[in-house]
Amino acid sequence: MNQPTAPEVVRKPQGAAGTPPAAAAMPNPGRLFQTFNAYQQTAAMQAAIELDVFTAIGDRQTTAEQIAERAGAAERGIRILCDYLTVMGFLTKNESHYGLAPDAAMFLDRRSPAYMGSAARFLDAPEMLKAFDDLTAAVRKGGTVMGEEGTVGVENPIWVEFARSMAPMMMMPAEVISQLVEADKGGKCRVLDIAAGHGLFGINIARHNPQAEIVALDWASVLKVAQENAHKSGVESRYSTIAGSAFEVEFGEGYDLVLLTNFLHHFDPPTNEELLRRVRAALAPGGRAVTLEFVPNDDRVTPPEAATFSMIMLGSTPHGDAYTYVEFDRMFRHAGFTRSEHFRHPPLPESVIISYP
Amino acid sequence: MNQPTAPEVVRKPQGAAGTPPAAAAMPNPGRLFQTFNAYQQTAAMQAAIELDVFTAIGDRQTTAEQIAERAGAAERGIRILCDYLTVMGFLTKNESHYGLAPDAAMFLDRRSPAYMGSAARFLDAPEMLKAFDDLTAAVRKGGTVMGEEGTVGVENPIWVEFARSMAPMMMMPAEVISQLVEADKGGKCRVLDIAAGHGLFGINIARHNPQAEIVALDWASVLKVAQENAHKSGVESRYSTIAGSAFEVEFGEGYDLVLLTNFLHHFDPPTNEELLRRVRAALAPGGRAVTLEFVPNDDRVTPPEAATFSMIMLGSTPHGDAYTYVEFDRMFRHAGFTRSEHFRHPPLPESVIISYP
Repeated sequence: MNQPTAPEVVRKPQGAAGTPPAAAAMPNPGRLFQTFNAYQQTAAMQAAIELDVFTAIGDRQTTAEQIAERAGAAERGIRILCDYLTVMGFLTKNESHYGLAPDAAMFLDRRSPAYMGSAARFLDAPEMLKAFDDLTAAVRKGGTVMGEEGTVGVENPIWVEFARSMAPMMMMPAEVISQLVEADKGGKCRVLDIAAGHGLFGINIARHNPQAEIVALDWASVLKVAQENAHKSGVESRYSTIAGSAFEVEFGEGYDLVLLTNFLHHFDPPTNEELLRRVRAALAPGGRAVTLEFVPNDDRVTPPEAATFSMIMLGSTPHGDAYTYVEFDRMFRHAGFTRSEHFRHPPLPESVIISYP
Repeated sequence: MNQPTAPEVVRKPQGAAGTPPAAAAMPNPGRLFQTFNAYQQTAAMQAAIELDVFTAIGDRQTTAEQIAERAGAAERGIRILCDYLTVMGFLTKNESHYGLAPDAAMFLDRRSPAYMGSAARFLDAPEMLKAFDDLTAAVRKGGTVMGEEGTVGVENPIWVEFARSMAPMMMMPAEVISQLVEADKGGKCRVLDIAAGHGLFGINIARHNPQAEIVALDWASVLKVAQENAHKSGVESRYSTIAGSAFEVEFGEGYDLVLLTNFLHHFDPPTNEELLRRVRAALAPGGRAVTLEFVPNDDRVTPPEAATFSMIMLGSTPHGDAYTYVEFDRMFRHAGFTRSEHFRHPPLPESVIISYP
C-alpha cells in the first residue's frame, strides 16, 4: 500500500491561490467525496424541477433574484441550487446570469416538447429511494428488501405513476420501434402491448399505421392512463385492453407484433421463458416479438447506462436484472423462437430485440 | 425549442449491435437519467464499504463468488454491486475477476493507512441524508428544514460521529497546515484548536513541534475523541481542553495560532465576524489565525468540490455557505485582522487561509 503524502507547500503572495505543479501525481479523494455526496445531485435535480427553475431561466428570468421571485423561494436557496446545477453542467453562468445548457433547454424547460422533468416522479419516487435506504441488506439477500415483491407486486400503484410520468422519456424509443417494424408501410397489424403502461409504444404504431389494432395489457389502474393517451392520439377506435397480470390473463392469438417494453428485466430467466412461450403461441404466422431493454455487453460493465440498470433491479425487485443479448437470445430460444436481432440506437440507453418464432 | 428526433434506424445482421454514425448530434437524456439515479452511487458505495468489498478484493478474493462468501452476501448481489462499482471507476474487471482501481486501493481497502471508508458514516449519516429528503423546502426557505438549527444545534451528536469517522480524510490537510505554519521549526507555540473534532489539526502540530501546547475546544462529548487521539499520538501531556460552544466560552489569550478548520462555513458572516473578533483578541503578538475551508472562486461555480460544498450547507444549516476568498478576507478585516493569505493545494478540495492581526 502506498502511504499518503502531503502536497508540497508553495507559498504564494496574498490573495492569489497557488497550484503546486506536482499535484497531478497525488492520490485524490475527490472522486470518493463526490460519491459520498452523489445523492445531493438527485435532490438538487428534484428541487429544480419542482420549483420549475429551468422553465424560469428559459423564460429569461436569469438572476437568482428573478428566479427566486418566480419560484416563491429564497434568493439564497436559488443561488446555491443554481450554482450547483452549473457545476453539474445543466446550467451556464455568466456573471450573475444563469442560462440553460443544451440538455436542460431540451429536456427540462417545461415549454419544450421533449420535457422529461416528470420522469423524476417515477425514478425518484419515495418508494424507489426507500429501496436504496439499506442497499447492504439487498446485496446480502441478492434482491429487494422492499415488501410485497418490491415494485413488481400485484397492482403496485407505482406503475400508475410510471405510466403518467415516464411517457416523455419513451417518445424516442417508441419512434425507434415504429421505424424498426416499418409501421409506415401500413397493412394488417394486430399488436399486443404487454405491460403497456402509458401505452405509447402501441399508440405510436397505431399513429404510423392506420390499419394497426392495438390490445394493451396492464393492471386496470394503469390502463386508464393508456386509454387516455390513446384518446389524445385519436386512435381509441383501434385500441382495446386486457386488464390483469401478464402471467395470468389470456393473450388471445393472431398477433403480428407482441411488444415487451421495459418488462423482462423485472424477472428471472425461467419466469421470462414461461411468459415468452405464451407470447410465441399468441403470434400469427410471420409475427414477431419486439423487446425494448437495457442490454449491457457481455462484460456487464459497458455501456454505462445499460450496465448500471441492474442496480435498479437489485434494489427494487426480487430477481430482476439487466440481461445481456446472449441471455435474451437464450431465453427466446428456450421459449421456441428460432432467432433474434439486436439493435442499438445511441444515445438511447435501451436496445431493441426483434425475435422470430 | 428543438423537436426531439428519433435516431436513424440502421438494420444490422443478427447478433451484432450497430451504432448509427449520426448518433453524436442527437439530444441525449443520458446525463439526466444518470442524475435521477445518482443517489444509487451513494448507496452502492455505502454498501460496498459496509460489506468491506474493497478489502476483500485487495486481499485477492476477486470473483463475485469469493467476495460474496467472505462478505456473507448473495453472489448475485455482489456481482451487480461490483459491476456497478466498475462502471463508476472504483473497480476494474477482467473476465470474472474484479480488481481495485487506484483510488479504491488507496482509500477504500481497510488495510491502507489512507483508508477513508469511515467517512461514509458522517457524510452519509441518516440525518444528513434526511436533510435532503425535501431540498425543495430548504431552497424555498433558504436554509435547512431540519429542526434544532440543523447540524449546528447544541451538542448535536453528529459531531461525535464526525470526530470518529472523518479523521482519515483530515490527515492530508492537517499535514498541509503543519507545513504552512512551519511547525517543524519548533519553538514556543500555543495553539487554540476551535471546534477541534477529532483533534488532528492541533495534534499534528504538536507531533511536529515538541514545544507546541494545544488547547482543544469543542462539545464535551466530542472532546473525548480528541483526547483519545492525543493520547494515541503521545502528545496528551501538552493537550488540554475547553468544553462548550465556541460562541460562549472564554478562549483565554496569548495564542500563537488559532485553528478554524471546517467551522466558519456553518454560519453567516456577522456571526463569523463576532467570533473572529474574539479570536483576534486571543492571539499573542505575531500570532495568526489559520482557517481551513472550501473556498470557491469568485464565480462560485469553480472548482467543483469547493463550489458544491455550499449545497451541503444549504441542506444542513440555517445560514452556512461556502465563502469565496474575497468574502473571508472581508470577514477577517471587519474583525480587525489586517491581511490574509490564501493557499490552495490541489487535489485537496480545501484551501488554507492564514490571517494576521
